[in-house]
Parts: sequence; structure tokens; C-alpha cells
Amino acid sequence: MMTKPFLYHGQDTHWVTVSEHALTLTFASEADTLISTIFIRCEPDNEELLIDMEKGRAEGRLQYWHGQIPLNQDKALTHYCFKIMQNSRQWWLDSKGISPRMPGRESHFKYNAQHQPPAWVKSQVFYQIFPDRFNNGDPSISVVDNEYCLKGNERPTIAKKWGAPVSDSHDSNGPNEFFGGDLKGVEDKLDYLEKLGITSLYLNPIFQAPSNHKYDTTDYTRIDPHLGNNAQFADMVENLHQRNMKIVLDAVYNHTSVNHPWFNRYQKTQETPGAFGNPDSPFRSHYQFDGDSEHYIGWKGIDSLPKLNFSNPEVQDYIYAGDDAVIKQWLRPPYNIDGWRFDVIHMLGEGVGAANNAHYVKAFRDAAKSVNPDCYVLGEHFFEATSWLEGDQEDGAMNYYGFAHPVRAFFANKDIAYHNCKIDAAEFADWLEEVRGKVPWQNQLAQLNQLDSHDTMRFLTTLNGDQDTMKLALLMLFTYVGTPCIYYGTEVALEGGHDPDNRRCFPWDRTEEPSSTYDFVSKLIANRKSHLALQEGSLHWLHAEQQQLAYARTLGDEKLLTLINNSESSKALTLSVWQLGIADDTVLKELITGDEWECKDGVLNITLAGKEGLLLTL
Amino acid sequence: MMTKPFLYHGQDTHWVTVSEHALTLTFASEADTLISTIFIRCEPDNEELLIDMEKGRAEGRLQYWHGQIPLNQDKALTHYCFKIMQNSRQWWLDSKGISPRMPGRESHFKYNAQHQPPAWVKSQVFYQIFPDRFNNGDPSISVVDNEYCLKGNERPTIAKKWGAPVSDSHDSNGPNEFFGGDLKGVEDKLDYLEKLGITSLYLNPIFQAPSNHKYDTTDYTRIDPHLGNNAQFADMVENLHQRNMKIVLDAVYNHTSVNHPWFNRYQKTQETPGAFGNPDSPFRSHYQFDGDSEHYIGWKGIDSLPKLNFSNPEVQDYIYAGDDAVIKQWLRPPYNIDGWRFDVIHMLGEGVGAANNAHYVKAFRDAAKSVNPDCYVLGEHFFEATSWLEGDQEDGAMNYYGFAHPVRAFFANKDIAYHNCKIDAAEFADWLEEVRGKVPWQNQLAQLNQLDSHDTMRFLTTLNGDQDTMKLALLMLFTYVGTPCIYYGTEVALEGGHDPDNRRCFPWDRTEEPSSTYDFVSKLIANRKSHLALQEGSLHWLHAEQQQLAYARTLGDEKLLTLINNSESSKALTLSVWQLGIADDTVLKELITGDEWECKDGVLNITLAGKEGLLLTL
Repeated sequence: MMTKPFLYHGQDTHWVTVSEHALTLTFASEADTLISTIFIRCEPDNEELLIDMEKGRAEGRLQYWHGQIPLNQDKALTHYCFKIMQNSRQWWLDSKGISPRMPGRESHFKYNAQHQPPAWVKSQVFYQIFPDRFNNGDPSISVVDNEYCLKGNERPTIAKKWGAPVSDSHDSNGPNEFFGGDLKGVEDKLDYLEKLGITSLYLNPIFQAPSNHKYDTTDYTRIDPHLGNNAQFADMVENLHQRNMKIVLDAVYNHTSVNHPWFNRYQKTQETPGAFGNPDSPFRSHYQFDGDSEHYIGWKGIDSLPKLNFSNPEVQDYIYAGDDAVIKQWLRPPYNIDGWRFDVIHMLGEGVGAANNAHYVKAFRDAAKSVNPDCYVLGEHFFEATSWLEGDQEDGAMNYYGFAHPVRAFFANKDIAYHNCKIDAAEFADWLEEVRGKVPWQNQLAQLNQLDSHDTMRFLTTLNGDQDTMKLALLMLFTYVGTPCIYYGTEVALEGGHDPDNRRCFPWDRTEEPSSTYDFVSKLIANRKSHLALQEGSLHWLHAEQQQLAYARTLGDEKLLTLINNSESSKALTLSVWQLGIADDTVLKELITGDEWECKDGVLNITLAGKEGLLLTL
Repeated sequence: MMTKPFLYHGQDTHWVTVSEHALTLTFASEADTLISTIFIRCEPDNEELLIDMEKGRAEGRLQYWHGQIPLNQDKALTHYCFKIMQNSRQWWLDSKGISPRMPGRESHFKYNAQHQPPAWVKSQVFYQIFPDRFNNGDPSISVVDNEYCLKGNERPTIAKKWGAPVSDSHDSNGPNEFFGGDLKGVEDKLDYLEKLGITSLYLNPIFQAPSNHKYDTTDYTRIDPHLGNNAQFADMVENLHQRNMKIVLDAVYNHTSVNHPWFNRYQKTQETPGAFGNPDSPFRSHYQFDGDSEHYIGWKGIDSLPKLNFSNPEVQDYIYAGDDAVIKQWLRPPYNIDGWRFDVIHMLGEGVGAANNAHYVKAFRDAAKSVNPDCYVLGEHFFEATSWLEGDQEDGAMNYYGFAHPVRAFFANKDIAYHNCKIDAAEFADWLEEVRGKVPWQNQLAQLNQLDSHDTMRFLTTLNGDQDTMKLALLMLFTYVGTPCIYYGTEVALEGGHDPDNRRCFPWDRTEEPSSTYDFVSKLIANRKSHLALQEGSLHWLHAEQQQLAYARTLGDEKLLTLINNSESSKALTLSVWQLGIADDTVLKELITGDEWECKDGVLNITLAGKEGLLLTL
């Protein structure tokens, strides 16, 4: 009914510059569309302030506009959107796009002037390693059969041969079977990872813990002896840093193992009695017992993972507040890790539920940044993480809700619970943009985007092994906004079903033969690394309908276009590339294949083959 | 592309019941639509919990479902939405409607178990009075010409004849002209207001202040002597309460007058020197001066309205924290007011901007409720008030953003700045629902809905005097979710342009002759009061396209339908009233005219004349 004009605002440094007290903003409209006035709408004191933009240069069909707003002085976040007066009506532009009336505050553009993620994050290519399954570098420390039991005298350890099938037992995901992967195994493969183009590692937990997944910590200060030792770990980080690589570790502070000395459920003899069964234990209020009983709060009701009580100052000191708090300890020499990935960070706090969660997450952040202001504070969230990502809590999240979920819905027609879920490209783009737009731009860039992880079915398997669609999803992973992270083995098309089958041993034999997946991934990585626009450029949607989508990432004159056809049939697209400031008759080149296309009159007419994905540049 | 099934959840007591630890929820779908499972999605610990609903009774084409979720124990708000599994896809229902994927958290249904607005608010019909312009009951206290000056020796008072044109001066809106309205004038008209059906008054400021609008307080403890006195006010409240009427006063605590003794800019001799020009004044830090200079923070930069400094404990004590704080004083005997409307409440705090605003708003609430737990805490917000309306700050807001703005856009094609703004009925409904759905249901009911106020052009004038469209807007005011408030004179079609023309004297001569507007308003009020469904019933949208809309309010078996045609042309509508559980062949009766329509096969086919509005019931 109402034809929307072309209106655009990017958030990279070509569109937004910051000074001590102001943001200077650039806006683009289509020239000659009867736009009389463009206001920036901001709220310096919680009340609307409209600031008239000045008309700047016209270039081709684009008209630029410029204006400046004050940075909010009463809060860290400055949010703004645009009000566009056109003839007898008005339009608004915010992070969700164009609407005929003022949009809700949640989707206004946001800038956090006080808290920014480390600048290095957005330029990384992360690689997630589940340590027991990546590579066995030192068989002498591998867990052996019956070496110990996970609970009292239940669940003796099982040592399995590298590459043997992972147990499909449904009871606790077989946490007592071990394949022998270790830190030396990781270090031995740094050349391999570097060659692939990886720049940062994220390791699942490596601190002392009885299970293979190690989310049941028994000592936060010690590398698990079956993975290595503290000195060796320090050496490995040094090695990584010499290669200009980074490392982020898994921080599991919501709960401990029942075998942690503080809890000591299974009555190992120890000097100071643990909390379980001992109401007088000095550690009793480290947890949350129901009076003097043996009932306590476990994570999601799981009694093998008792939740820590963060209202206890001793827990606070140990985890984050004290000088030697574990959050700080590993960020300091000799370990010098580059960041923490905080496990189920939204769930920790006080009592049942997560009371005062925001307070503790801020405290975690402050503790980490006090030691290394440039460390990466990454939160795990399976669902919407908006409130943790406004700048003052986390730098970024494991971006399930804003990337993995919509990607899974669009390409695999499944949701996070593997229920059927059908969305078309319009809904897919809407979902991506809704989640992205709720957080400040710098945090969008520091989101950790993944297709899969140790907690989900491998994406290739979710696609029933469909390599063509997998490539489309990988193309998105490396070209969409956010920092890409691949789960170990993705580059050699490792498959795996539900947890724990998604934690299969790395098939090293596959690296000895040519692999189209490996080639494709390594080319995507190389392009990601060589194009700043893919790391920090603004995003423009050019098309999102039915099963096709096209978007660009631009950073000044660097412009890359991602085109995806998720249908089996070929499809002709007409893309208004003039909106990107691409001049008439420009030739676009595909970065993987080298094919070329010519734009005519600011438009790219292109036919995508079934399941084709393209990465084009000028 | 995807046909959405009918899915519905209301939030009144027929759909949501609360017990100590749980919410029991009812859901309706269309029977026989291949729905296999419906989950309630909640977050008891910030993590998703899906709870399977049980199939309940089927009635006609409706299938009911039931389920129970825990009330969050870690926070006051419990939020939830629904996941519906249908064949090869899924749907979600939240306050914004149906979508093919999980909606953002902001629009999930919300219930606040710890903080509820007073139950009486939703059943009221409010009447806003600008005291100087309503009725002169005691000419002996009226301001006379040159009685005093507003600023130093500038702006002497002017006394004007009742009904004379309001000054159109643009400098400060002519705050120095007076027409003599006063509290006795209000009290003299209580019979008139009661007969109209009014149950609650909201008075613009009545505390001592030099201007006619009195947003420039000089004494928070004293009724302005030109309006009455404290004893007289106490008697008036007693009179109101005997009539079972309520009264809400305007609380202006963001700033004071420059003539307040604390500030004393114009050098009236006083024992204790005021803050202006006296760095040593004991009141110096009641305000926010730039060092020892004469520069200070004024509201929106207006230097006649210096902002109070809420970080000062003396200001805190005086306004809200002390035993005799002004917020408490007027809620106590002998005054016993029923609530406060807090002026620009989102803007107060510390320093430039509104630092720590939420803290002070909560403190205001706590102070007020400590004296009268059943008082109404109402905030003034011209724009989105979501964050103040989650239950723990305000009970309700002057609902500009969620009612007056969309109504003005749809019916008058203007926005709050009187810029052209075009939205169709679909966008109108979307706007209303977006704002409404972000706050808990009980707070939605306690929103103060207005078409206009002392701060906006009168709505009839915004419509260029179009009485037909005005009636459509009034129909919405009395049938939509939220507590209706009419601005004095609306019932006799009083016009008025921009402030201060919107504050014309009440034309009492118009009450002496028959008035179709008065009849219409009084019938709407009578219907509002006699139908609980209009006060607290759930809302169902039946139609919202182009210029036509239809919605129902239902509370169990009481069902009322509002149908509006905002076009000049007639329009035939087909409404699926079976969705409301209306049986085949039911006869619907119009409540103003008495006309009748018959539903066939669960559908109401009806043709609305141009600009026709109907209020139907069974």
C-alpha cells in the first residue's frame, strides 16, 4: 500500500564516528524521493530530542545526510533512530528497517560509549575444541579403564580407541568414556590449525574434573592431569601468542562437581568436611541446602551439579572478587589466556532461579577486565541474550539465538529442540536483524557465531549430510556480522548426531587426502581475513524472499556481496546494487570461483543455480 | 505463504489464574487443525522450560488447552509464550500475535506477581481538569491584574474574563494570564461530573506556584491561595470520597520554580539565602550548579525551571524519604488523595540527563505505597514507557505512546509533533499491540488512556472539528484496554489548538442545551461502567485492514465488539465471531442505537456506513 523509499544507515566507522561527547552520523537516501527533512531521534535525558540532519553530497542515485547527537551522559548506552519526512507522510529507520511510525525502543540503533568489546575479537576465526576428542599427544596421561569412578563407586572410567563410536547411552551422555585427547595433542596440531587459517581457540573445560566433558569441576586452579598440567598449559599459550593466536577457556562457575572438596558427596576422606551431609562444614553455605537436610539446588535440578551460592562472600572472593580469584588467575602470567567463555552465565546467582544475575555477570566482567582490559568476556546463551549484551556485561555471546537457531531453521527446517520449523528468507532475515539490532554494533561484531557446538547435533548431520546446503551455511558463517567459530572437524565434514555423538574423535586420516570441504572452508577463512568489510563492515540486505537471500558487507569502498539460493531450483534475482554506491557497469567478481558479472544501470541481474552460493566483490 | 491457524490466549481471569507459586493458563485453538502439541514456554531460571499443555474441552469450533507454569522465584516478572506444533511446522503465540519462530522476549506475555496496580483503577472514568480554566467558584481569591510578577519585575499577572480568548503569545505560553478557576469551582461541579458518569479526577498542579499552569512550584506543602487552601482541599476530597469518587494530583518533583525559597533567583528577601547567586546557601546542592557560577541545569535547558538534585539526601527526605515527605503528606489524612501523577518522571535523577532514574522512581513508588498501598502511581511519559511499567515502578502511565499517538496517527494522520503521519488499520493495531504487550496485563489495564491533554492540541481540533471521526476515537477510548480519561470540556465538544489554546475556559453555557456529543460520551461512560468486560476483559482482534477495524473485549460470557470504519465510504466486513465462542445464530445488539444483527455459522456479515462506529454485545 505504501511504497517504502530506500533509506539506509550503517554502523561502521564510515557511518558513525565518536568524539568525547558526540556521535556523528551519516545517512543515505535515494535522491529525488521528495524527502524534505531527516531527523535523528535521540534521548539525552529519556525524552525525545529531534536533530535535523544536513544534506551532504549526492553520488549517483544516493543522497547523503549528516548530523550529530550528544552521547548520553546519564547512561552508557546512546540509542537513536531516524525520522524521515517525505511529502504527506513520515518514515522511520531503525535496526529492524523502515516503518511508517516510530519503532519500539528495543530496536533503535545503539552505541555504548563506556564499554566496548576488545577490538581484536572481530578479526578472529575461532576454532572450538572438545579436548578429549581432538588429538592425543601424550598417551602416558590418558585415562585408563577403571582408573576411577565418577560417582562414589558408580561409573568407572572407560578408555576407548581413537575413532571408536561414541557411546549412545542416554544416561548422562556417557561422561565416563575417554579417548585420550589432551593439550599436547592440541599443541601438536597448531601448525595444522594455523594453515587452515584459525586465529583463536576456544577450548571446552580443561580444569580438573572427573567427566570427559569437565563441566563438573573439582579444582578450578588446576589443569586436569589427564589433559596436561599448569606449566605445560602456560607454555602452550606462549606458543599460541608467538603465532599471534589467542585462546579462550571455558569458565564453569554456576555449579561444581559433587566431588569438589567443598561438596564432597562421595565421602572421600578429607581434612575439612565437605558441605554434603555436614551442616557444620565451612563450605556448607557455598551451596544452597534446604536447612540441615541433604536437599540442595542442582543446576536444572540435576543433583550431580550442585549450584554455587553467589550471595556467599567466600564464593565471590574465590571466583571473582579476591586478588587470586580464579577468573583473574588464568588471565594473569604465566597463563595469560585471552578470554573466558562463561558457561550458563544467565543461570547463576542466588537461590532458586538466577536472582541478582546481572550483578554477578557485571562483577565477573569487572574482575576479568581489571586484570586484562583487552580480554574477551563471552557468555553462553541458548536463547535471547539481549540483556547481557548491552555493553556492560558481556562482550559477546555464543550466538545461538541470533545465528545458529535462525540458520538451522532456514537451512535445516529444525529448531533448537529439533522440532520441525519452517521459515522463509524474509522471516529468516527478520529474525537475524531483530536479534542483532537489539545490541550495540560493537557487540554485534563480537558475537561468536557458530553452526554447531558440543551441545548441538553437528550441522552437517542436521542437514542429513547435504554438503551443498552445508556450504551455503558456511558461506553465511564467514560473511555475516559476528565472529565465526567452527567446531573442530567441520573442515573435514565430520558428522555427529545428538550429544554425545557430536563429540566424535577428529578423523585425522581425512586430512591426508584432498577434501572439497576443507578447500571451501579454508578459502572462506582466507577471504574473511583478507576483507575487513567481512570483519567489521555494515550489513545491507538486498533481497530476502522465499528461499533466496542477498546481502552486502561494506566498509567504505570495500564491498562484498553474499548471494544464497537455498532452493533446489535455479532462480533469477534482480539486485539494486546502486544502493551500495556501486557505479553503473561495475564488474563483480566471485571470490571462490573467479567468475564475473557486470552490473547495468545500478542493477545486478543474476541467475543462481539450485543451492548455489556466491561471494562477490568489485 | 503460510496460513496461520487461529490461536488465542487472553490474560483476564478466565485465561490466567494465579496461586502462590504458579500460573494456570488457558489457550484456545481452532479444533481440527492438526495441532499435535502446545507448549507453554517460560524461563524459571533464565533458561527455557517447555511445559506440555493438556487438551481440555471442545466448544463449537474452539479447542481449549490448559497448563501450569511456575511463578519465577528470582524476579517479580514471570514471562511466557506458547509454542504450537502443527504437522510439519511450528507456530508461536505471544502478545504480538502469531509467528513461525520464537518471538523476542520483549513481547512475551508478562505477569508481575509482586507488584500490582490498585484494583480500583481499571474501573474508573477519569476527568482531567486544568484548574484555572474549569470553573470559578470563589472570585474573591482570583488573581487580579498586576497582583504579582512571574520573574523579577517581568510578566505581571493579567486577569481575564471567563471565556475570553487564551493568549496566543509564544513566549512561555502566556503563563501569567488567569481566568479564575479554583477548587471551589471544581467542587461546585461535582454533581455535574457525577451525572456525566465521572468517577475520578486528575487535577493539574494545585500547589503554590506563580504561573497559571503551576508546574513551577514554590511550596509543595500548600494549596495555591488563588485556588483555595489546604483545609478546603481536605473537605473537597472528603466530599469526593463520600460520592465514591477518587482524586489524583500532579506531582512536579523534577524541578521547582526559580522563585522557590530554595532557589530564590529574584532576590526576594528571605531569612535563609536561596541557592541562586549564593554558593554558601544551605540549598545550594538542592540544585545542580556549575561550581560557584550562576549556571545550573534547567529542565530541557529552560532556566526558569531548575532541576532538583536527587543525589542530595535533603532533597530525597523532603520529596519521598522522610516521614513528612511531600509524597506521603498528601496521601495521609486529612488530605487522603488517591494517587499521584508524576510529571516528567522519566527525566528526573542526578546530573545532566536522568542518571539513576529507575532508583528514584522505585523510591517514589515505595514512599507512596508505604502510606497507602492502594494509591495510584501514574507517570507522565510522552514516549515509550515500557521500562517504567514492568510493575515495580509505576502502576500506569499517561498512555501517549500506546494510545494517544497511534490514535492520532490513524484518525488524524498526525504524529505527536503534528507532522503528517499515515498508518493503516493493520499498522495501527500493530502499534497498539506492540506497546501494550510489553507490559504486564494488570499494568495495561491501569494505563491512563487519553485522546488529548493540557499538553496537546485538543483532539477535535486536530481533526479540524470533524465530529464523526471524534466519535470513533471516543468509542475506542471507552472500549480499548486501559482506563479512559477525558480532558475537561471534551463532553461538550470544546475545541482548542496548540498549548495554551488547548486550555480554554470551560463553556458552561453549552451544558444548558442538548448536545449530541454529551449524549454520546455519557452513553459510552455508562456502557464502560456497566460492562466489566470493557474494564478488565481480554482483547481479541477480529479485523484490522485499510481503514476498518474490529475488536472484542471479553470476560467470560460477557462479550463486546467494537467496529470502526474510518473511511468516508461504506464497507462490508466478515468477522469470524466463532473465535470469541459466539454460537451460531446469535443476535448481536448495538448498545447506543439498539440495532440488531444476526450471526450465521459463526460469522458476522455487516456493512458499516462511512465513519460508522458500533458497540455490539450479545
